[in-house]
Amino acid sequence: MISSAYFKLEQRFRRLSVLRDATEALQWDYATMMPSGGGPGRGEQLAELSGVCHGLLNDPEIGDLLDKAQDETTLSPWQAANLKAMRRKWTHATALSKDLVLAYSKACTGCETVWRTARADGDFAAVLPHMETLLSLVRERAAAKAEKLGLCQYDALLDEFEPGGRSADIDVRFAELESFLPEFLNEVLEKQKIDPAPPMPEGPFDPEKQRELGLKLMTALGFDFNHGRLDVSLHPFCGGTPDDVRITTRFNENDFSSAIMGVLHETGHGLYQRGLPPDWRYQPVGEALGMGAHESQSLLIEMQVSRSRPFLEFAAPLMRETFDGSGPAWDTSSLYRNLIKVEPDFIRVDADEVTYPLHIILRYRLEKLMIAGDLPLVDLPEAWNDSMKKLLGLDPANDREGCLQDIHWYDGAWGYFPTYTLGAMTAAQLYAAALTTRPEILAGIPDGNFKPLLDWLKENVHSLGSSLSAGDMVEQASGKPLNADAFIHHLKSRYLA
Amino acid sequence: MISSAYFKLEQRFRRLSVLRDATEALQWDYATMMPSGGGPGRGEQLAELSGVCHGLLNDPEIGDLLDKAQDETTLSPWQAANLKAMRRKWTHATALSKDLVLAYSKACTGCETVWRTARADGDFAAVLPHMETLLSLVRERAAAKAEKLGLCQYDALLDEFEPGGRSADIDVRFAELESFLPEFLNEVLEKQKIDPAPPMPEGPFDPEKQRELGLKLMTALGFDFNHGRLDVSLHPFCGGTPDDVRITTRFNENDFSSAIMGVLHETGHGLYQRGLPPDWRYQPVGEALGMGAHESQSLLIEMQVSRSRPFLEFAAPLMRETFDGSGPAWDTSSLYRNLIKVEPDFIRVDADEVTYPLHIILRYRLEKLMIAGDLPLVDLPEAWNDSMKKLLGLDPANDREGCLQDIHWYDGAWGYFPTYTLGAMTAAQLYAAALTTRPEILAGIPDGNFKPLLDWLKENVHSLGSSLSAGDMVEQASGKPLNADAFIHHLKSRYLA
Repeated sequence: MISSAYFKLEQRFRRLSVLRDATEALQWDYATMMPSGGGPGRGEQLAELSGVCHGLLNDPEIGDLLDKAQDETTLSPWQAANLKAMRRKWTHATALSKDLVLAYSKACTGCETVWRTARADGDFAAVLPHMETLLSLVRERAAAKAEKLGLCQYDALLDEFEPGGRSADIDVRFAELESFLPEFLNEVLEKQKIDPAPPMPEGPFDPEKQRELGLKLMTALGFDFNHGRLDVSLHPFCGGTPDDVRITTRFNENDFSSAIMGVLHETGHGLYQRGLPPDWRYQPVGEALGMGAHESQSLLIEMQVSRSRPFLEFAAPLMRETFDGSGPAWDTSSLYRNLIKVEPDFIRVDADEVTYPLHIILRYRLEKLMIAGDLPLVDLPEAWNDSMKKLLGLDPANDREGCLQDIHWYDGAWGYFPTYTLGAMTAAQLYAAALTTRPEILAGIPDGNFKPLLDWLKENVHSLGSSLSAGDMVEQASGKPLNADAFIHHLKSRYLA
Repeated sequence: MISSAYFKLEQRFRRLSVLRDATEALQWDYATMMPSGGGPGRGEQLAELSGVCHGLLNDPEIGDLLDKAQDETTLSPWQAANLKAMRRKWTHATALSKDLVLAYSKACTGCETVWRTARADGDFAAVLPHMETLLSLVRERAAAKAEKLGLCQYDALLDEFEPGGRSADIDVRFAELESFLPEFLNEVLEKQKIDPAPPMPEGPFDPEKQRELGLKLMTALGFDFNHGRLDVSLHPFCGGTPDDVRITTRFNENDFSSAIMGVLHETGHGLYQRGLPPDWRYQPVGEALGMGAHESQSLLIEMQVSRSRPFLEFAAPLMRETFDGSGPAWDTSSLYRNLIKVEPDFIRVDADEVTYPLHIILRYRLEKLMIAGDLPLVDLPEAWNDSMKKLLGLDPANDREGCLQDIHWYDGAWGYFPTYTLGAMTAAQLYAAALTTRPEILAGIPDGNFKPLLDWLKENVHSLGSSLSAGDMVEQASGKPLNADAFIHHLKSRYLA
């Protein structure tokens, strides 16, 4: 029999989950449909919903119920995992005083607003005082959470995005990558110099046709349009709920591959969301694992699957058909070569999969120092540029190309960056395991049969929800704890073979 | 100084209003964007939000605050009107037991579901037991609210849709109409027989072009697309909020005028919503008056303005240009004649403005009898058909053409129907007053200058919010209490002149 404390918690968290779904729908509308004049009103709606959720989660009764439910011995493994996930959410929510929550929220908005102009002007000094204020509140948050969670301060922030993620593990993985990537990058660039990619297909490419192609590829991958949509937004994202997955893209008339790869990336997120366990639909244990696991699903579809030769055997004919393309630039091999071009650049969001981890390592190292109080913000531009030189061999001409480029820190998100590269490593390790255990996965791809792949992902990742940690999920699916081997192996075979 | 009780109420009702805005956005998405699989989840979200609002409004503290604020003598007239509107909402919400609210909600869903099939099959017997259950709960609601509001039972239901509306007044107005309309209708039909309308333009009409035309007309009327959108839904409606007005239409490829007149109708609703007083944005007194006043704004734009010769002088050239139309069917005069064709029919939603009130009088009389317990539901089809014969001279071939046609009763909305015809009478009386006081309104229309009209509506209707009753608004704007004279005068001059 289920304890009544546990059952009450399930009801409470169900309400929270339903309200979060409503929030998701409002945010999607904000990004895709809302006329500009609706902004302030939508802000009110989101703040009010957030207040309602805060009230539900900070109800003093919850702490008692969590303790009572803990003593129950009748919980199933999923229920026990659910209880653990509830406690984690509750601890994060209640670790902070109401004043700190408000001050932080205000500082985020204030800093982000100034950053938008400062970035455009390349003027770090303009945002510095706001960033100082924000960082000091972030460190207060870190200290408060660290105490409640029994973690170091950086890990307390990381845990918001990556439950169970620990910087000690990341340090090891990132060291493996750092010892490999810079030299590897030089080799790849040498090879590319000798054998450069053929010219790309020339546009313009009608956005409506790009969209049609995107829909065809999504359908082939198993995206269910009875439970989702594809729309346009300034910044592509995957939102919505498991029953109603809303992914977005943006179209570049000169390069259809950027929108299409974006669609495939978001489709990976969307398939994960759709595949979460329906029996635990509104419970914490039914949610996706952290950002690393989520990114592993988008990168598995985009980087591992879609930027591969077998995928192009399926997709290149569709591309030619859609855009009426012919000539050497439209050869399957040319299209593939252009999807795997490596080009060191200052900007993370435009980076290829070889240089991307170096951008992340740079940010991870710097944000750890900042949280520890070991890097005064006034020194950030110089520290950034030094690392950029060391890791990527580049000298940013200004802070717009440097430490002002990403929104994350200026919007209060510290501890987020490493999840991108955890995702890349996880994607490689999972995909290697999938291909080894089910040869029909690779065999199906040139024919556009992705069912074996999706089945494997559902079974080994999606349907598990948060019933185990991201680390245990990877180990269970691949037989090994997460490490950089599969990712390094993947890079070697794609870029040097 | 504002009493602290009043101030606390403002805060509470502000939260309710913001949450209702969120609900509006979710409902709009449901009707326009949501994939079918999102239905159950969206239902959960709407139910949860409704529960949160119910909790806020049923908090016992509210009753005390209302009483305390009532004793304050420092309230401004708008604050006093706001307090009155708060009390009305609170009384409606708290008049019913939680059990009755749940039973009613369940009965609505149950009856509506069966009705969908019963209507398709013309099978009244199939829905009868569900309607019996629902009606008995509606009567319980009416009794509970009647006691709290000090009204008769029918008026207690009417008051939900038409605050301050009373059946004694409606009886008088509808009697005026009934003594005029049937004979008038015969005269109009005779006149049409002698001088029939010319042929209509022939389709198909590209929906995209219909949409373009709709957007042009909306813009001319003053609809602000920084604060609103036009989309497609199965049943056209006006939703959203004053800052973010979402209107919808549906396109008929064979008759562009149906979508365009629908767009103009919803634009009337939308302009009202947008014009509500911004200083009272999230307070009950800042909301629109009841359904009658709302319908008056849509019918004023659609029936009074848009189906008129001066409007066609402006719009007909746009219609010809949009659809590349030429020939006699596209003459301004032909287009106008086809917009004012009168044709008695069984179906209310397709009715012209001459026969529409007869459909409403029929429903109003029958629903009063049903609420009073004087018309057993088993006798409804016969009573319907008798009235239809008497009022419109028609014999429905089956109940699909008869008492099964409208969703309202089967979805629990009793006391709603008369607001349609209150709206038509109000529209005529307001428009006549506007034209008399500001000659530039009529003068502007052929040139597509609707600013004088919109200014008058803002000043006399929109910006007043609910600071006075619908009756007082009409009297203040037109110098007379609402009556059927202007409507009858309008019909005579449009259809017999």
